[in-house]
Amino acid sequence: MTRIEHLTESGLLARITPGLTQGADVELGPGDDAAVVRLASPRLVITTDTLTEGHDFLLDGTTPAWIGHKAAVQNLADVAAMGARPQAVVVSVSAPRETGAALLEGISAGLAERCARDSVSVVGGDLGAADALSITVTAVGALAVDQEPITRSGARPGQVLAVGSDLLGRSAAGLALVLAGAGNDPDEDWARGLVAWHDAPDPDLSLGWTQCPGRARAMIDVSDGLARDGGRLAVASGVEIDLDREVLGRDVERLATSAQRIGERTGERIDPWEWVLGSGEEHALLATFDPGDVPSGFRTIGIVRAAQAGARGSEEGTALRMDGQPIADLGFDHFG
Amino acid sequence: MTRIEHLTESGLLARITPGLTQGADVELGPGDDAAVVRLASPRLVITTDTLTEGHDFLLDGTTPAWIGHKAAVQNLADVAAMGARPQAVVVSVSAPRETGAALLEGISAGLAERCARDSVSVVGGDLGAADALSITVTAVGALAVDQEPITRSGARPGQVLAVGSDLLGRSAAGLALVLAGAGNDPDEDWARGLVAWHDAPDPDLSLGWTQCPGRARAMIDVSDGLARDGGRLAVASGVEIDLDREVLGRDVERLATSAQRIGERTGERIDPWEWVLGSGEEHALLATFDPGDVPSGFRTIGIVRAAQAGARGSEEGTALRMDGQPIADLGFDHFG
Repeated sequence: MTRIEHLTESGLLARITPGLTQGADVELGPGDDAAVVRLASPRLVITTDTLTEGHDFLLDGTTPAWIGHKAAVQNLADVAAMGARPQAVVVSVSAPRETGAALLEGISAGLAERCARDSVSVVGGDLGAADALSITVTAVGALAVDQEPITRSGARPGQVLAVGSDLLGRSAAGLALVLAGAGNDPDEDWARGLVAWHDAPDPDLSLGWTQCPGRARAMIDVSDGLARDGGRLAVASGVEIDLDREVLGRDVERLATSAQRIGERTGERIDPWEWVLGSGEEHALLATFDPGDVPSGFRTIGIVRAAQAGARGSEEGTALRMDGQPIADLGFDHFG
Repeated sequence: MTRIEHLTESGLLARITPGLTQGADVELGPGDDAAVVRLASPRLVITTDTLTEGHDFLLDGTTPAWIGHKAAVQNLADVAAMGARPQAVVVSVSAPRETGAALLEGISAGLAERCARDSVSVVGGDLGAADALSITVTAVGALAVDQEPITRSGARPGQVLAVGSDLLGRSAAGLALVLAGAGNDPDEDWARGLVAWHDAPDPDLSLGWTQCPGRARAMIDVSDGLARDGGRLAVASGVEIDLDREVLGRDVERLATSAQRIGERTGERIDPWEWVLGSGEEHALLATFDPGDVPSGFRTIGIVRAAQAGARGSEEGTALRMDGQPIADLGFDHFG
């Protein structure tokens, strides 16, 4: 095994960089002090996020390519959630000196592959020494000259809430499997799919820039779970959002057998409602639209109402409801 | 002491964010999925870099504000080294749960203060859990519509090499003091200045965007030492660079007493030439100019020559020379 301590930083980058395809919008790619990218407009959209070994992923429970994929998705989703098309990312990787070069190459390949799928270029990187592996991605895009950013605060009574995913809860279910020791190579298809979704969630992010500009009134991506992120959106907008129990109940039904099987392995009873409401790292887009204007790729899961006078509407758990009842009162222990 | 484990991420950000002044170019600052910044042009310049506790800094040997300052400088320097004015940064901090909130507030304050001095806004951040403290900054700027990026590869025979610093070597000298146990509170002025420069180097980065566009032919910042970075510039440009021993000898003289005093503490003989040639993390700008066109703020320290036929010009240690002799042959053990 070639360890990175036996390679110079430039030697390692020389192994990785050729795999990074640069788009026509990249004037200067990796290798100089900074990269140069011609954005679609001067209105830069920028976000950054870190994944750390032992906290955000377990090396035993995932694959290098999935780590790179997830680091891409969580950042591309944040750009998409503003209604902007991501164009480029830079990545900073910190790793112990005894790390295998193949691990870093795998992370890089997974990052580059997921980025390339949305025509996003990996234009720069940095490699440093640390005691634990971590990867920080910064993603950038641009808003058209006349395009408003889609913030969290534009939800208004009468709009509907919709999500760009046909099934919520898989990431939490996959995490439950990983924690139950299924690792990254479970023996059955149903389990494999859930672990893969947890380790490398793959929502359609292009909905953000193809369907949402001019139509989505508020948007966020589901990074901490439907309950928390829906609550954030409601609080930021000063409204209440009422989830539809019947619609979300179909997600619960689709995950019920998996919950039962995992529960049998761990000896704990699992309520799949906790997954559907609490599953973080789904990175699906969650947005409000005018009724009758929900784009293809989104499904309606709730409605926006005026905050009740004197209600505890400034707290995420009460501004978000399901069939009229505050989520905080529904008796779930936690949300992922 | 308030530990961050007792605050939610949003609670901590609520303590930090008000201290971050947003420039008029910031359309949307921290708090949503991503920030929106109106760049001076669509030609984005972007770079990223990480500082990790125990590898890039020692908590005992620095201050929180200095960590933030250094994280800013190393990234702003990379944007400046392209000839671009930095406009914004985003920052991702990973920290153990028992970290004091005051530590993170101090890092944030140091980052924001250094950024504000160059009118750079801190537009977004992310806070995550890790076993060790680390801070990743991504800096962005823009090139004017008709402005070429100043790369490492534009040095040509006949140009001169100049550095935007009146003294090289202080960062290595300060590190030697820290490693000798002087910590961040040495008892004498000379030592205090050196430790401060190591922990919070403060070159004039504005030279990059005020003096260099249209004049600097090649540029890099001194992050790994004059010898290495000068060698990189020479190799990227396919030239030889010949340093002036007499000029750099003045830097050596200015550091000679410090070298002697530190050597007396540690019992090792220190050659201050190693500091001047090898000191990394100076982040001063190192550029080539046409003779007679070296801007104010830079001093000439060498000349650019054609690579000798059959020379080992593709290696940094031989493409860089001093008074004609390859640096690699001068007998220094290492360069910082």
